[in-house]
Amino acid sequence: MGTILELMQGYAKKVEKELNRLFPSDLEPLPLTKASRHLIDAGGKRFRPCLALAACEAVGGRAEDALETAAALEFLHSFTLIHDDIMDRDEFRRNVKTVHTIWGEPIAIIAGDALFAKVFEAIAANLKRIKMEKRRAIEIFDTISKASFEICQGQALDMLFEGRWDVGEDEYLKMVSGKTGALTEASTKVGALLGGGGAGQVRALADYGRLLGIAFQIKDDILGIAGKKEKFGKPIGSDIREGKRTLIALHALKNTSKEKRKFLLKVLGNKNASEEELHMAIEIMKKAGSVNYASRKAREFIALAKSKIAPLPASKGKDVLLKIADFTVEREF
Amino acid sequence: MGTILELMQGYAKKVEKELNRLFPSDLEPLPLTKASRHLIDAGGKRFRPCLALAACEAVGGRAEDALETAAALEFLHSFTLIHDDIMDRDEFRRNVKTVHTIWGEPIAIIAGDALFAKVFEAIAANLKRIKMEKRRAIEIFDTISKASFEICQGQALDMLFEGRWDVGEDEYLKMVSGKTGALTEASTKVGALLGGGGAGQVRALADYGRLLGIAFQIKDDILGIAGKKEKFGKPIGSDIREGKRTLIALHALKNTSKEKRKFLLKVLGNKNASEEELHMAIEIMKKAGSVNYASRKAREFIALAKSKIAPLPASKGKDVLLKIADFTVEREF
Repeated sequence: MGTILELMQGYAKKVEKELNRLFPSDLEPLPLTKASRHLIDAGGKRFRPCLALAACEAVGGRAEDALETAAALEFLHSFTLIHDDIMDRDEFRRNVKTVHTIWGEPIAIIAGDALFAKVFEAIAANLKRIKMEKRRAIEIFDTISKASFEICQGQALDMLFEGRWDVGEDEYLKMVSGKTGALTEASTKVGALLGGGGAGQVRALADYGRLLGIAFQIKDDILGIAGKKEKFGKPIGSDIREGKRTLIALHALKNTSKEKRKFLLKVLGNKNASEEELHMAIEIMKKAGSVNYASRKAREFIALAKSKIAPLPASKGKDVLLKIADFTVEREF
Repeated sequence: MGTILELMQGYAKKVEKELNRLFPSDLEPLPLTKASRHLIDAGGKRFRPCLALAACEAVGGRAEDALETAAALEFLHSFTLIHDDIMDRDEFRRNVKTVHTIWGEPIAIIAGDALFAKVFEAIAANLKRIKMEKRRAIEIFDTISKASFEICQGQALDMLFEGRWDVGEDEYLKMVSGKTGALTEASTKVGALLGGGGAGQVRALADYGRLLGIAFQIKDDILGIAGKKEKFGKPIGSDIREGKRTLIALHALKNTSKEKRKFLLKVLGNKNASEEELHMAIEIMKKAGSVNYASRKAREFIALAKSKIAPLPASKGKDVLLKIADFTVEREF
């Protein structure tokens, strides 16, 4: 069956064609199309489309019946990245310049909006060509709309946390659940709906997706602090410089001495922090047991995610989802 | 039957409740909700919802069956306004400060995105509760998604025109058709679809909506140059200062002397143009016949719009749409 990355590539390949068919690169006006497609063209694992296609198969459906919706999930993800990059003033993503850095903010805002519009057009194209009762078709639109709204809520929470370091773990999880978990849940849920899954199966796959997304984000936090730069692709400690609310930082602030807490607060969000200060901050976090704590949390979410889909009958789709779950916490990139 | 404004108020009232039910003002996080609802709460004629409800009735449907979708059109319109204001750096709209001026750009971007997400949630809520075949339901989603995409294309064209004064009338019309006509077309089209209209009726109402939107924008251009400030609400000539590509400006540049053209190019887009320069520019435009030309164009589009729905059987909905068409070119605000 190949490694999980090979399996994911297999799914991703099927989606690539849809991405190009649904948002052709010669659509006028060209600058808008180029800006909208920029991050999609820069690559990526097509993680959310893979989740949808595997979930579709896990309930006995055919991946071919979910292709446009899988592509829609990539459009949706890409739209959030473009707008996030504007808000965070990030200059690079996926080793290329961000959209607003190249085309300016106004075009970047519209480029994201255009992708968001394509999401629903792609789903409509999918639902037009396959047999399905009206109620289920509407549930697919409803799932994606509500997930999109929740992503906005999560992103807003993240922004509103700025200037606050007393963010509780529950608040952190709510934010992450919105920013990341809502879309991974929607991915597996619409996959299951398109595959003809029963209500229980759809719920199980939705739950799996939500938990997976949360674990994915926590693991990202871990890699950003305790990973290896050459594998992770981003400078280690940049989350600290940017003052990102990560589970590790929040845990460390609560579980270290008053003095070290003071030091952490000085470094967190300090764009000019020296390499040595970053290194010291990371050491404090490690000694406070915060990296271990986050790892344990991520593994708990993954174990729970896997348990949700355990009752599903054996299939390639289910197998892929179980492997994706393991990969999510084991990856080094 | 009352004046057209009273008739529109009657429709608008029905939508108000839906706007509040679908996007309650106590939704967390509150700053996001407040920012998203800001322009909606500031008022407005609910022009697009009115178009949808009247179109629904014009094909024999009940306005009650289209309420959530009508609200969705207001969410969609409001989303485009929030993002447009960011792009144009406008400080005021509907006599209140713009969203980004109050909450900052990042929250304003998400506030727009959240409204956009609500559009499809609202439509899903509508379609869930009424009887309709799957194909028609999907066509409603498809119509709104494609219109949203076209709005982005129109907005992008508008931005890409910057720095160019050789924009042809066809290009201008394409831009306006996208920025304004796409959504008015979608409004009447989904209204007709929800009202159970036949294919020919749906097409006729869609065409009416498109033509109406284009005329609406041309009339806006006219009021911005030849209107009365106290009625129009915006300072006369601000379009000139902002360098907006209007049908009037484009026509004048082609139909005046070389010398006056040079003067116009000096004033157009000059934020520091004096009142006297503005006044002179407006006089040149009037003398070039450009205001008359635009008025004639707007009236042509309106006559064509009305002719499209002429074959529909008499009804209150049809009557309202005909009156809206007249109002569009006759209004002074």
